[in-house]
Amino acid sequence: MAPKTQKKTKKQIIHEAAVRLFRDKGYSATSMRDLADAVNLKASSLYNHISSKEEILKNICFENAQRFLAGMEKVEATPGNATEKVEALLRLHIRTATGDAASVMAFNDEWRHLTEPLLGEFMALRKDYENRFLAILNAGMQAGQFRDIEPTIALHTIFSSIRWLHDWFQPGKKLTAEEVEEHVVRMLMKGLSAS
Amino acid sequence: MAPKTQKKTKKQIIHEAAVRLFRDKGYSATSMRDLADAVNLKASSLYNHISSKEEILKNICFENAQRFLAGMEKVEATPGNATEKVEALLRLHIRTATGDAASVMAFNDEWRHLTEPLLGEFMALRKDYENRFLAILNAGMQAGQFRDIEPTIALHTIFSSIRWLHDWFQPGKKLTAEEVEEHVVRMLMKGLSAS
Repeated sequence: MAPKTQKKTKKQIIHEAAVRLFRDKGYSATSMRDLADAVNLKASSLYNHISSKEEILKNICFENAQRFLAGMEKVEATPGNATEKVEALLRLHIRTATGDAASVMAFNDEWRHLTEPLLGEFMALRKDYENRFLAILNAGMQAGQFRDIEPTIALHTIFSSIRWLHDWFQPGKKLTAEEVEEHVVRMLMKGLSAS
Repeated sequence: MAPKTQKKTKKQIIHEAAVRLFRDKGYSATSMRDLADAVNLKASSLYNHISSKEEILKNICFENAQRFLAGMEKVEATPGNATEKVEALLRLHIRTATGDAASVMAFNDEWRHLTEPLLGEFMALRKDYENRFLAILNAGMQAGQFRDIEPTIALHTIFSSIRWLHDWFQPGKKLTAEEVEEHVVRMLMKGLSAS
């Protein structure tokens, strides 16, 4: 078993170095050579572990898509009204932004660099997530819990409103991740609420 | 006067083509050759009108900075409470996003490509605007008009929450610019309000 564990660890190191490079230089400007240098490997050895930088981008994008879809499934399966469901999803978005910033940055900004058929598959997962989120927003409006806001506008306002946290939040600064989460939730959930 | 007017028009045409290219390809990927092709000039002739693509980026960034600072000055000089002032600024941000999308995109995403001393000058204008916006948020919290939300979080949540409109809004679709503005204002101002 030892060699298999060893290899998995190396792959993980490469993955983490790539996430940092994508964050700092952008996906397009990151070369396999940059990545090899970052993990002290020759470019030729790097190919023993990964086939391309797109393989890493694919992993980042699909892992994040699965994280959000798993969160959605849990929320859908849990009893509760639309307010509780939206708040649970909002907290998942915020925690992901404060807890896994580099990954979120690649997910937000760099998914466009996926090529087909990956791009289409990724966009379908994303659309599925958005549609299920919209269904919860619609339910909350019909139940009179949320104000009369065009659901598409509410959805994108929520998504967009936290798309600075991953860049700004630093552990150990003035506010903890929990405090940041409470302030953002307070502002956005109140904005939706009909009461 | 005729030649001067002529020249100004050509410069404006080049400016507008550059804004579209920056939006579609990104600033980094846009070459002077692309720009010359877009306006049917030889690259050598283009230099009669502009010195570099950074000159155009500079114009976009500083024109937008001046637009927001002029809005801030007007708001500061107008009687009214913090709620009215924040709402007026929010409406300025939204109208700029729906009315001048390509320019906003360059302003949001591409200012980082300015070089010194322009970069430092631009960031100082931006910081000035943010500080004056924060002062209004603080005043509203101290007056009990706004909820107890960390002002920096409220500020960036407001700025970020509309940073999808320029990409999404299309005149002539389901919602008018005025309707979009009302829905976004409704959600965000309610989110801030203490009542």
